[in-house]
Formats: sequence, C-alpha cells, structure tokens
Amino acid sequence: MLKNWKTGEKPSAEELDRRLDEARLKLAAKQIAIKDKKLPVMVVLEGWGAAGKGSVLGRIIKNMDPRFFKVSVMSEISEEEKRKPFLYRHFVRIPEAGQFMFFDGSWMDEVTGDYLKGKLKKKQYEQRITSIKRFERQLTDNGYLLMKFFFHIGEKEQKKRIDELLEDKNTKWRVSGDDLWQNKNYDKCLKVYDEFLEETNSPSAPWYLIDSKNKKWAELQMLELLLEGIDTALGNEPHAVPILQNTFPLNEQAKLADIVLDKALSDKEYKKELKACQKRLRDLHNEIYRKKIPVIITYEGWDAAGKGGNIKRIAAALDPRGYEVHPIASPLPHEKARHYLWRFWNRLPKDGHIAIFDRTWYGRVMVERLEGFCSENDWQRAYNEINEFEKELYDWGAVIIKFWVQIDKDVQLERFTFRQNTPEKQWKITDEDWRNREKWDLYEEAVDEMLQKTNTTYAPWFVLESNDKKYARIKALKTIIQEIEKNL
Amino acid sequence: MLKNWKTGEKPSAEELDRRLDEARLKLAAKQIAIKDKKLPVMVVLEGWGAAGKGSVLGRIIKNMDPRFFKVSVMSEISEEEKRKPFLYRHFVRIPEAGQFMFFDGSWMDEVTGDYLKGKLKKKQYEQRITSIKRFERQLTDNGYLLMKFFFHIGEKEQKKRIDELLEDKNTKWRVSGDDLWQNKNYDKCLKVYDEFLEETNSPSAPWYLIDSKNKKWAELQMLELLLEGIDTALGNEPHAVPILQNTFPLNEQAKLADIVLDKALSDKEYKKELKACQKRLRDLHNEIYRKKIPVIITYEGWDAAGKGGNIKRIAAALDPRGYEVHPIASPLPHEKARHYLWRFWNRLPKDGHIAIFDRTWYGRVMVERLEGFCSENDWQRAYNEINEFEKELYDWGAVIIKFWVQIDKDVQLERFTFRQNTPEKQWKITDEDWRNREKWDLYEEAVDEMLQKTNTTYAPWFVLESNDKKYARIKALKTIIQEIEKNL
Repeated sequence: MLKNWKTGEKPSAEELDRRLDEARLKLAAKQIAIKDKKLPVMVVLEGWGAAGKGSVLGRIIKNMDPRFFKVSVMSEISEEEKRKPFLYRHFVRIPEAGQFMFFDGSWMDEVTGDYLKGKLKKKQYEQRITSIKRFERQLTDNGYLLMKFFFHIGEKEQKKRIDELLEDKNTKWRVSGDDLWQNKNYDKCLKVYDEFLEETNSPSAPWYLIDSKNKKWAELQMLELLLEGIDTALGNEPHAVPILQNTFPLNEQAKLADIVLDKALSDKEYKKELKACQKRLRDLHNEIYRKKIPVIITYEGWDAAGKGGNIKRIAAALDPRGYEVHPIASPLPHEKARHYLWRFWNRLPKDGHIAIFDRTWYGRVMVERLEGFCSENDWQRAYNEINEFEKELYDWGAVIIKFWVQIDKDVQLERFTFRQNTPEKQWKITDEDWRNREKWDLYEEAVDEMLQKTNTTYAPWFVLESNDKKYARIKALKTIIQEIEKNL
Repeated sequence: MLKNWKTGEKPSAEELDRRLDEARLKLAAKQIAIKDKKLPVMVVLEGWGAAGKGSVLGRIIKNMDPRFFKVSVMSEISEEEKRKPFLYRHFVRIPEAGQFMFFDGSWMDEVTGDYLKGKLKKKQYEQRITSIKRFERQLTDNGYLLMKFFFHIGEKEQKKRIDELLEDKNTKWRVSGDDLWQNKNYDKCLKVYDEFLEETNSPSAPWYLIDSKNKKWAELQMLELLLEGIDTALGNEPHAVPILQNTFPLNEQAKLADIVLDKALSDKEYKKELKACQKRLRDLHNEIYRKKIPVIITYEGWDAAGKGGNIKRIAAALDPRGYEVHPIASPLPHEKARHYLWRFWNRLPKDGHIAIFDRTWYGRVMVERLEGFCSENDWQRAYNEINEFEKELYDWGAVIIKFWVQIDKDVQLERFTFRQNTPEKQWKITDEDWRNREKWDLYEEAVDEMLQKTNTTYAPWFVLESNDKKYARIKALKTIIQEIEKNL
C-alpha cells in the first residue's frame, strides 16, 4: 500500500485553515450523534517515529468534549500485561457504545516491532496477524467503527526531524532508541509495515494513509477521513454479517439426552477420593504457579445442578493467593455497552494463576439467545467468536477446562421443591428459576448446539453427571487434575 | 484454513435424508424471496479434482427453478477470453439482481493452476490475488451475496476416486490431466490452495470448506451453509460501507474554472493538422494491431461540447475492422440489474483493437450522483472502484485515454439555441439538455471532484478545450498519437 501511494495535493494555506476549522466543528457536532446512536468508535494512529501522530492527536482532541473520548498510549507494556494474552491489553481498552477511543500506537506497532527485532519468529508473527484479523473482525461484526490511520514520511524527512529534535536539549528526550533504529533500518521497516497494512486491510476496517510532511495537512487528512467514516457508520442500521464456518478442530460430543445419569458414589468412596484429589490438585497448583501456566475452569449447567458446591470443592484445594472465582451475573451497564466478551477479557487470570468462572461467556448462546437479548445473527456468530477467544487463551498457554453440570428434569424439580420448603435455602430459588425450567426443552436444544459447536480439542467440554453431586465433584477434580497433568 | 479443519459429524443415513429434503425444499422456497428482494447471488464451487463438486451442483440445481439460476463452467478459457483482461470472463458472468449464478470452478482455479504450473510468476500471482480481492469486494460492497465453497478430500481418497474412474471405460474421460497432476503434487497444491483461501477469506465473502468424503453429506453441508448465507443477506437492508482511500498514483488536475478556453485554430491550420494527424494515427493503428495493444478512448463532456464530431474525426482515421464506438445511454433493465461496471466490462475491445466510448462509467459520479440514481455511499465509493477498474485494464496492457470536452456556459447556450432554431438539428436538443443546463454548477462541482480523484498516472484525463471545435479535434488526435507512441 505504501509503495505507490501518493496523497492528494495539499491545499493552499487559507484553504487548509478554512477546511480545518470546518472539520473540527463537524467533529464536535458528530459527538452528539455518536452518543445518541450509541456508536462505539475506535481510532488507531500508527506511523513512523517522528511522523507527528502524537501532535496531530493532541490537536484533534483539543476540540472534543472530554466526556466523549479517551486516549490509550500503547507504547509501554506493563509487567501485568506481559502476563496476559497478547490481545488482552488491546481488548480491554475498547470503548463503550457512544464513545471514542484513540489508540496512540496499537497492536500493529507491537507486533511489527517485535518481529523486526527478532523477538517474534515468522511463524509467531503470522499467528499474531491472524489474531489481529480476528480481533478487528469481531469488533466490526459487532457494530464497532474501527478506523486505522498510518502516518507516513520518507526516510530523509524522518532523519531530518530526528536530527532537529536531538539538537534541541528540550526535545532530545522525545527521540527514542526505537526511532533511531527505525530510521537506520528504514527500508526493512517499510517492507514489514507495508505487508502488515496489506494483510490487515479488510473491507470493514481499512487502513488510511496520511501524508505527514506537514502537520496541519496531516490533521486535515485525518479529520476529513474520520468524518467520512463516522457519517458512513451513522447512516447504517445494525445489519447481519456472514456466519463463518468452524475451522477449529472439534471433538465429538454426545447429546444431553444420551448422557447416562445414574452414576453415584458412596459417602465412603467420596470422602476417600475427595481427600486424595484435593491433595493432588494442591500440589499441581504449586507446579503451575512455578511454571507460570494459567488455568481457566468454567462452569455452566442447569439451575440447582450443583455448580456452587462443586466449585467449593475445587477452591478448597487451592491456595487463595493463586486463584479467583468469578460469579457471572447479568452484565452491568458499562459492560453491556461493550463487546460481550469484554467483561471476560477483563477477568482473565495472570499466568500461573487459576480463574474459575461460575457461568461464562456461553451466556451469549444460551440465555441471550433464548431471551432475545441479542439478535439471531449475534448468537449464530458467537460460536466462532468464542472458539476464537478460547484459541487466544490456548495460544497464550492456558489450560482450559469447561464443565457442563448435568442433571435431569426430575432431579431439578426435587431440588427446587426442597429449596422452596427449606427456610434457609429459600434465597436460592427465584421465580426466574421456575420460568427457566418451563423452557427446559429450548435450553436443552441450545445447550446441545453449544456443546457440539464449541467442543474444540484445545478447550474441551466435560459433562459432569450431577444427579449425584458427590460423583460430579470427584469427576470435576479428576478432570482438572488430568488436564493440568497433560499440560505440564 | 485446510490444515486443521475438521467438519462436524456426518449424521446418520435417515437424518441425512431428512435434512437434505428439508434443505432442498427451503432452497426452492428461498428463490422467490431472493427474486422479490432483488438479491444477486453468486455461488462459487472450488475444490480438488474428483471431489465431486460437479455432481453436488447437479443435484442442487435439480430442485431449483431454471428461471432463477445459471451455471458457468469456468474450466475452458476461450480464445476470445484470452484476449481480454484476466477478470473479464468472471466479471461478465455476474448474475443480475434476484438471480443465482453458480460458478463451477472460478478465478481461484484459474490463478492457482497457472501459478502451480509456472505460467504465472510469484509477482504476477500476487497481482492476480489483489485483483480478485478487489473484484470480490466490489461485488459485496455493491450488495452481491458471494458464497465460496471449497470441496476438500485427502490425497488417498482422491487417488482412489481417480483410479476408480480410470478403470471404467465409461468414466475414464472424466479424469483430466490436471486431476492426475494435482494428485501427484498433492502437498504442493495443498499449500498453494490453503494460502489462497486464507488470503481471500474476507469477512464479507468468506470461504466455506466442504468435507467431500460422501456426496450426500457434501451436498447437505453446502445446502445448509447456502441457506444460512441467504437468510443473513435477505435479513439486511442495503447499508453503506467504508469509503476506501485512494492508493493509486494521481496526477494534478486543474479545476474546470481555471481552464483557458480561448484556444482556436484557423481553417487552414486545422485542415493541415487534421490530414497529418489522421495519417499518423492510421499508421499507429496498424502497429497496435500487430503488437496486440488494446486502446481505450473515453469521452465525457458538456452537452453540445462537440463530442460526436470529435469522435468522428478519430474514427475517420481508423480501419473499421479494428475499432468500435460505443454510445452509452441509460442502462437497459438487464444492465441496471447488475453492478454498474458490468456493461463496460462487456464492451471491452480485444487486444490490438480500439474502443471509443461516447460517455462512460463516469456516469456513476455525474448523472447518477446528481439525479440520485444511486446512494451517496455508492458514488463516493465509485472513484476507487473506477480507479481499480482502469488499473485492471492498464495491467492487461491497455492504453487508456480519457477526454473531458470542455466549453463554457455561453457557448453551450449559443449551440443549444442554434440547434433549436435549425430544423435539421432539432433532434439533437431535448428538454433534458435544458434541465441539465440548469444544474451546471452542481455538475461542474461533480466533474471537478471526478477529475481530481480519477486522474491516475496510468489512466489520465485530458481536457479538450472545445469552444473552438477544430482546436479540440486536433488536440484529441495529437493526444491519442502521443499516448499510443509512449506505449509502443
């Protein structure tokens, strides 16, 4: 893209000022429309060191209402972020509906930099690009406006600017080692940047090149392109996108109706097994801590299936400094205003830690599907989005264990009735539970589809037969032990 | 995509039959909805030789109403097609709104085949992929549903099928040399196919892989995916897409208001120049014919600017066997029902020939823009689409010369009045001409934008100052001579 690209002619000085004023006013006015239409806007600024993207950004936001935008400076990666998946620091920064997020530097800078300096091998780099394409597609598929700008200057111009900055002791600090390295290796960088731009130049999130020889002119180009993109997005109603076929490796998964539920353990067996398993898990927890392996354990299942008690038996074996349980309820307003996976990206463990999710992102293809909280296209798309999400976790090195806690309809009725009739358990049963029970068949269909479509080899489902809770607890412990052992 | 891909589990025989019946019925029903909603549907079938895509296609169309679909078998390239740009044979086959077009083989087969056999160098191959991505994006941006299927079988399975076909003298003919070559070079082909699928797997036109071990099962997969894609597309209203930035090299272009129109030629000069230029052009016509260089000359300009007379002076110099003039009026219904560039793809010259267009594809950004025949997003997008179109022509080897025939408003009034008052010229002037004249300023703005945004180095605009028609004619001849000479 960069090679043959030539910008339009720079307007005269007065024309430039006039159009800048006009564009700034328009952007200020658009903020309200963006808020009203609840459009989330992500603006990425990339480019050569000393191309001036920072100062253009500074001037653009000067005219904006601070309530409507945030800026993320992406150059520094914190120690905490290094212990999370590659996409983590980017995904957690996506804006909420109706807001702007400006990324000063982004995933591009990160991966091309690491690749150019040999920190990423070719194969890992290609994997990163796949992750980026998925990330961007997930955003635009879910209604985000994503606009990506690359500030371009030539080798000589960059050298001139760096030299000028270095000469003045007040600006010297602004030249980084990276800038110097980039200028010395300009052609090598150009090639990698150009290929990156090509590969990630998708129809729904294209790149825009900015001729950065002049700051005002660069600002005008960016503002006018931004306004054009915003107008296009504001003019659209939500629309469906193609459902991608699964290309992740899947294991077979039996239907719920075919699962035999008569498995049980005696009290004696249970106690013996529990003690042994918990001891083994305690030891493994130390090992994964030392080896910095993250573990993600998720629970889904029928109401009253025994998720809580099951989780308790896992947690009891763990060192409290090394795990966290995340009970997942309805999303809060600031969560609902973002991509549905955002609140889960935000709850990922550090490496070496265990996160246990009591209900999960699978709500998208169960309750959100059945209650109409999202469109059909949304939940149809979600199987692939979830497989992609879990693939990111797996590629990061996580052990992922997903439980479906299964009981039959009679057992649920027994447990509901018991709860209803037992004063100290009554808080556990709500009208909603009874309403959900009426939709058992619809839920069963949705769960079967979910288990079929997301039972990937790298993040498999395990059904816990929980008519006998003791059996289910021991099976959960054994499964966790087995999966961690496999990955040590 | 192919490497890790594993299909879902094949259903039992009865389940397969039941779902096939259901899918066939649904597809039959969808035809009406597709027609009503005027959705154009392109279905591409690609895959390994002997994977059975032909027979699956045969069974799918058996249940469809023949009025609603066509099949294009793309394997053979005709001599005529070889003399056109690479995309020609594909673009001319796009369906009209409300219709299906099945492509049995496609651009993928063509370019991967040529690349694998060394007929395309790496660089040319990459250029082809760029062309394909643009082609597909133009279609989906313009509301086409494009679904691409790849029928996949393993090396051994392919060998087995080929052997079975070869053993029977009734089926022997169905095995092509290409099939045998492919099986011998399976791994090499796999790598190229896989990369092609990855590169052209765009969010708006993704690839779908079909597990083709079993014919009925393959048919079911394809039908169910097809129905899903159709449902998604039918559920959408037309929506705007991002306007891509120009990345083609542009020359500067003066605004119409700044063009000096007092240039003129005496009758004597004119006659002398005309004779000399026409002789030179006649000679050049022979040369381009011998060298198989296609030449495309386009005319746009104000009503009564003198386009017709100008074209006549060009044509007079040419051998009638080697050129064609295409007068472009409003599109006919079957043209309007397709991508707006389709009727121009259909009128391309063979190599070594000259095509002269009296009005052109630029109608999209002039009359269609101003009369509201297309949406704002449509014409905003068209500058890039047209630059892409002309880039295809240029890469094919064409010399492209675009004329804007310029007069001022007073001269137009004079000529209109003269036509009105001269009985034998009255047919040349219509109410529409007067109405257009009222919109002069709006047109001027649109023309200026068009000239700025499409004045590429490879397909430049030339303004013909035509207050004096004689001057304009000689300038046209000289420009054509100069541009052809440059390219010999």
